[in-house]
Amino acid sequence: MYENLKIENMTWQEFEKKKDNVIILPIGATEQHGPHLPLCVDTILAQEFAYRIGEKIDGVVAPALSYGYKSKPLSGGGPLFPGTIDLNGITLQSLVMDIIDEFVCDGFTKILILSAHFENEAFIIEAMDLCSRKYGDKVKILLTNWWDPMSPDIIDKVFDKVPFPGWALEHAAVTETSLMMYFSPKLVKEDKIINTDNVSPATYFRYPIEKDIVPPTGVLASAKSSSAEKGKIIVDNVVPNIVKIVKRAFG
Amino acid sequence: MYENLKIENMTWQEFEKKKDNVIILPIGATEQHGPHLPLCVDTILAQEFAYRIGEKIDGVVAPALSYGYKSKPLSGGGPLFPGTIDLNGITLQSLVMDIIDEFVCDGFTKILILSAHFENEAFIIEAMDLCSRKYGDKVKILLTNWWDPMSPDIIDKVFDKVPFPGWALEHAAVTETSLMMYFSPKLVKEDKIINTDNVSPATYFRYPIEKDIVPPTGVLASAKSSSAEKGKIIVDNVVPNIVKIVKRAFG
Amino acid sequence: MYENLKIENMTWQEFEKKKDNVIILPIGATEQHGPHLPLCVDTILAQEFAYRIGEKIDGVVAPALSYGYKSKPLSGGGPLFPGTIDLNGITLQSLVMDIIDEFVCDGFTKILILSAHFENEAFIIEAMDLCSRKYGDKVKILLTNWWDPMSPDIIDKVFDKVPFPGWALEHAAVTETSLMMYFSPKLVKEDKIINTDNVSPATYFRYPIEKDIVPPTGVLASAKSSSAEKGKIIVDNVVPNIVKIVKRAFG
Amino acid sequence: MYENLKIENMTWQEFEKKKDNVIILPIGATEQHGPHLPLCVDTILAQEFAYRIGEKIDGVVAPALSYGYKSKPLSGGGPLFPGTIDLNGITLQSLVMDIIDEFVCDGFTKILILSAHFENEAFIIEAMDLCSRKYGDKVKILLTNWWDPMSPDIIDKVFDKVPFPGWALEHAAVTETSLMMYFSPKLVKEDKIINTDNVSPATYFRYPIEKDIVPPTGVLASAKSSSAEKGKIIVDNVVPNIVKIVKRAFG
Amino acid sequence: MYENLKIENMTWQEFEKKKDNVIILPIGATEQHGPHLPLCVDTILAQEFAYRIGEKIDGVVAPALSYGYKSKPLSGGGPLFPGTIDLNGITLQSLVMDIIDEFVCDGFTKILILSAHFENEAFIIEAMDLCSRKYGDKVKILLTNWWDPMSPDIIDKVFDKVPFPGWALEHAAVTETSLMMYFSPKLVKEDKIINTDNVSPATYFRYPIEKDIVPPTGVLASAKSSSAEKGKIIVDNVVPNIVKIVKRAFG
Amino acid sequence: MYENLKIENMTWQEFEKKKDNVIILPIGATEQHGPHLPLCVDTILAQEFAYRIGEKIDGVVAPALSYGYKSKPLSGGGPLFPGTIDLNGITLQSLVMDIIDEFVCDGFTKILILSAHFENEAFIIEAMDLCSRKYGDKVKILLTNWWDPMSPDIIDKVFDKVPFPGWALEHAAVTETSLMMYFSPKLVKEDKIINTDNVSPATYFRYPIEKDIVPPTGVLASAKSSSAEKGKIIVDNVVPNIVKIVKRAFG
Repeated sequence: MYENLKIENMTWQEFEKKKDNVIILPIGATEQHGPHLPLCVDTILAQEFAYRIGEKIDGVVAPALSYGYKSKPLSGGGPLFPGTIDLNGITLQSLVMDIIDEFVCDGFTKILILSAHFENEAFIIEAMDLCSRKYGDKVKILLTNWWDPMSPDIIDKVFDKVPFPGWALEHAAVTETSLMMYFSPKLVKEDKIINTDNVSPATYFRYPIEKDIVPPTGVLASAKSSSAEKGKIIVDNVVPNIVKIVKRAFG
Repeated sequence: MYENLKIENMTWQEFEKKKDNVIILPIGATEQHGPHLPLCVDTILAQEFAYRIGEKIDGVVAPALSYGYKSKPLSGGGPLFPGTIDLNGITLQSLVMDIIDEFVCDGFTKILILSAHFENEAFIIEAMDLCSRKYGDKVKILLTNWWDPMSPDIIDKVFDKVPFPGWALEHAAVTETSLMMYFSPKLVKEDKIINTDNVSPATYFRYPIEKDIVPPTGVLASAKSSSAEKGKIIVDNVVPNIVKIVKRAFG
Repeated sequence: MYENLKIENMTWQEFEKKKDNVIILPIGATEQHGPHLPLCVDTILAQEFAYRIGEKIDGVVAPALSYGYKSKPLSGGGPLFPGTIDLNGITLQSLVMDIIDEFVCDGFTKILILSAHFENEAFIIEAMDLCSRKYGDKVKILLTNWWDPMSPDIIDKVFDKVPFPGWALEHAAVTETSLMMYFSPKLVKEDKIINTDNVSPATYFRYPIEKDIVPPTGVLASAKSSSAEKGKIIVDNVVPNIVKIVKRAFG
Repeated sequence: MYENLKIENMTWQEFEKKKDNVIILPIGATEQHGPHLPLCVDTILAQEFAYRIGEKIDGVVAPALSYGYKSKPLSGGGPLFPGTIDLNGITLQSLVMDIIDEFVCDGFTKILILSAHFENEAFIIEAMDLCSRKYGDKVKILLTNWWDPMSPDIIDKVFDKVPFPGWALEHAAVTETSLMMYFSPKLVKEDKIINTDNVSPATYFRYPIEKDIVPPTGVLASAKSSSAEKGKIIVDNVVPNIVKIVKRAFG
Repeated sequence: MYENLKIENMTWQEFEKKKDNVIILPIGATEQHGPHLPLCVDTILAQEFAYRIGEKIDGVVAPALSYGYKSKPLSGGGPLFPGTIDLNGITLQSLVMDIIDEFVCDGFTKILILSAHFENEAFIIEAMDLCSRKYGDKVKILLTNWWDPMSPDIIDKVFDKVPFPGWALEHAAVTETSLMMYFSPKLVKEDKIINTDNVSPATYFRYPIEKDIVPPTGVLASAKSSSAEKGKIIVDNVVPNIVKIVKRAFG
Repeated sequence: MYENLKIENMTWQEFEKKKDNVIILPIGATEQHGPHLPLCVDTILAQEFAYRIGEKIDGVVAPALSYGYKSKPLSGGGPLFPGTIDLNGITLQSLVMDIIDEFVCDGFTKILILSAHFENEAFIIEAMDLCSRKYGDKVKILLTNWWDPMSPDIIDKVFDKVPFPGWALEHAAVTETSLMMYFSPKLVKEDKIINTDNVSPATYFRYPIEKDIVPPTGVLASAKSSSAEKGKIIVDNVVPNIVKIVKRAFG
């Protein structure tokens, strides 16, 4: 239903007419999400938020990046799970820089990056900073994760049955599961959702990674009590919040 | 219909069981394809061939790379068309190297890269060579474009009305248009297919690019006489040919 | 008083004897810290924690890195303040990788990195990951910031008069000011400590940076109620907590 | 006889006067060329064409690059033959970029790169593109291989006894052997020219390289029927064709 | 006593006022210096000269770089000694480039780099050259080692008892030992100074390094006859000589 | 006359038989050498020494690198002279690393690099060090300039009429001119040799480069009294000295 926002579906002549609009780059990851969610969760989430935001602001949405920066044990389960297919930091950074440069080259000046993978942030920002030095005030580049702009009261609504573990540990847990149940219910194996205690947040990082700090399922906090309704509550709050940010930032 | 081949749809536990199978990485591009085809042609083609090959060899298909190496005027129209969003060579190379490394890290030893963008080749091969030096005989990495393994007699069948311009110039022309009509007819604007003379192949490269060597539409050879049937003829020939290559190369 | 822990003071023959001990690399930054604190705060803090930890575990302390990764507006005031002298991410990463490699080459297998600059984390971890792939289980590399291992009840004790703004915003505020009053009181201009409301945390990142999101002083949260006693409370809690982490991680 | 075109023979004062002329950079390779040709074939060919073109257009010729990008099995025999001494792609790219930058710095604005090694192309073009972005229309950079501008009827004349295998496979075969017999007959061991069937062109690339896809001699197509006369025929056709390209491109 | 010159001690507001002054970056190393001197000799020397020069020219002194480029056997004993903790060339180069860029970004246009480690020179100069291309005449960047500007008659005074071995071999020998006795006597173990013949200078470089070309102590020339007085003689000559250079170069 | 030593003249089968011998890589530069010498002086010198050494030790000589690292004002006249065509440091380093890797891949274990350009040294050594870490004791890599192994008494013989200015300043002066008169007299314009005072050696480096520190001719010390005889004296001394070094280093 968002087909007309997707630049992959446009001819170059259709795309050319959009250059004064906001262009959105969704960035996800290919990463384990426990026994009940597929590897593409972060990419799906980045795309689905991008489409809904794009629709509100008459933006266009570029093809998502399906591979992200390295998963860490206590925010994504880490590299030891099969199916977590990670990029080096400099690779993600270069990829984002090249794409920003091409957007600018095609005449776009309002670029929104929508990331749904916790670990991507630092390398996307480094790319934004280095590009921005070239373009100055002529080009504005904005990054938001989908969770940071969520209103505090929504956290209370969503975490009515299980405690909120903090965003780093919200991996394959209530918010991601609820959003997938809302966006793409066929990809959720509800029968595989199991009770699990919240993992303790990291106070340090050690390499080689200690295997026993992550549960063997890869789930960092309970996904029990997830529902499509909660997914909708999140979306209905986050999308207008990000639209507000976008309007102020590009105003 | 190929949903069960796509690693993005798998949980990590499902993915883990596939590690002795072939893993296929489709690589496309985001590139102008004239007034009648969308920007995603190369990505769609890479994916659709990957799924059909994957099905025959019990392989799995990783998320496609939607951005490729720089379009050149006389094989893709070049960088001056809006919507052609290109990576630097070293970025594509790094991206492919990181992903190969992760496949190997997860236990895969048979990697097939399926590219549908003419200009990608050199940088994918550089990535394959540098990775292969690390892994030696333990890991086999194969690259095919979809057009190279086509049987010569199929070229005659497909080019029954317009002359075959060579693969470099077959851009937004009969083969790509026919394949899109077969794979994804809704994305083809048949009424925008126009008669055009074949462009002359390049005998040199000049930078800055000479604008007048590419037709203003971005179409390098006529797409007239394209049909879904021709798309099917190509697929029915190429898929088994690549399956043969794969079996011999990984045998 | 920690002179005998500092490797810069050792001859090579003295250093050689320490190779079975923990080697600690403090990483700071040169960054604005408001009108009452000097540019070296992060470096001093990294060093002073390193010395106290080193003393407890019979470790040695390498020369600190005085320049860190780029300050961000809502965790350090950002690049627009004079005196914030930042490295690119890849530079910090390479620097840490080279130094880890040299420690390992000299026979050390237990490496503790102590960072006191919020923004350093991602690039230090990338360095640790890439080095660790070469060394496997033979070498253990640990990173802690000084704030993450602080016990929750200490936060209550320290923030008895002003609200805790979260660690990102604790910049030039109560904890950093108190620690400097404890470690290096001469470098604190107490008369320049002013009342300031806590800045709101970022829900997005925009480049070019919006100047008006950071107070003109560069102070992100009030430093009122800071004292050397509070500095001591923090140190007396954090040092043994990190010692515990170190013992478990290198055990 | 072309001594006065070679910039290596000029003093800096003589060189300075040439800055409005075309400067030609020959790029070859050090690569196996079967039992009858020396390792320097590609470098000799690049130079000899460069001199003859330079003479016609009052150009100057810079020292050739004697090492090129990696030989591939089915266009050069590949890396497994001793004497094939290859550069990584990024090294060749950087080398060409640095040299272009220096030419421009010395005032030259018309740069012709003459490559005689099939595999060099992609990395030279990447260098040209990246440099050209800095210089815009002020500097024109042209690349030609010696074979692309050959007139079709010359192919018929040269391949009067053996079939034309396509340019990729024309390695150590009729054209290269004939050109060497014309340019540098002492370096050709005519008695070592053997009958060989044309190798089949590649429809895929596999790493590690399959040894049995290349004949043990390293010759990819028969060099029988080669002669200095055929070499002259090629030169007499290609040189004026490239001169035409140069005049139009720099016009 | 030079506390007010050190930018680490300044607030950002104090630093901002200095932007028309000279900013000095001391670059040392962490390197073996025999049994009688500590690993920090080069860093101490770079700093101490920087402070004294800074005082004379109203300059400010940035935090020193404590790690330098790779020690070579016949100018620093080489990498085989524990405690010699070296950076790769490109890392030092990037580090210096980033810092120069930040100084310029903060408004400084007169940058003096004071190096005390023989092997640093080439990579610092590469950094200076690459930065200078961006800034042109607006920014002046100067590098001096502390030994090059020494007046010839001072060499005679200092080497009154032992022969001058040339600067490359003056490692842990009379000048470095005398300067340390003057700057930081507590760090000199005078009883460990032993008689040693001057090593022969290198006429070649071989890798892997030949262990037997460096004395087992790491001292390349005798430190006998060193004294704090000689240290003072050097300082009293070099500081005004460098001040003269600075004034002319930035004049 | 040294044709049989040059690997460019060999077939791959001839080259393969030499893998237990020493392989020599000459590295020169393309650099101004005053009004009386051509731009290729350093390359010619590197090659001619390489051939004579190769002959004595039954070595083989690889194609020379004709472009070197950046000329500096007081050792080569610097970048402001047209015809000085320099590489960035990292480019030269990568080039040397790739070539060493390929020599090793072809079975060679004794590699001699002969440089004739003062400024090349640091980047060649960095390449040697990084390669050597991979190969350990199995591969020995040696670098000599042609001037360092010269016997001291030869300096006296050669500088019988003009003072020896030190090797950095011996640019386009007596030794280089005499060697060119011996090796390649046609390329020397003797009538352009002019009297010039020796330039003063640098005690510092400044960027942007000060134009007035180099004579407008680019000659740094007088070439008067140069002769082919002096060239021969140098060669007859240096060649056996380097042969001795080679035998000891590879022994």
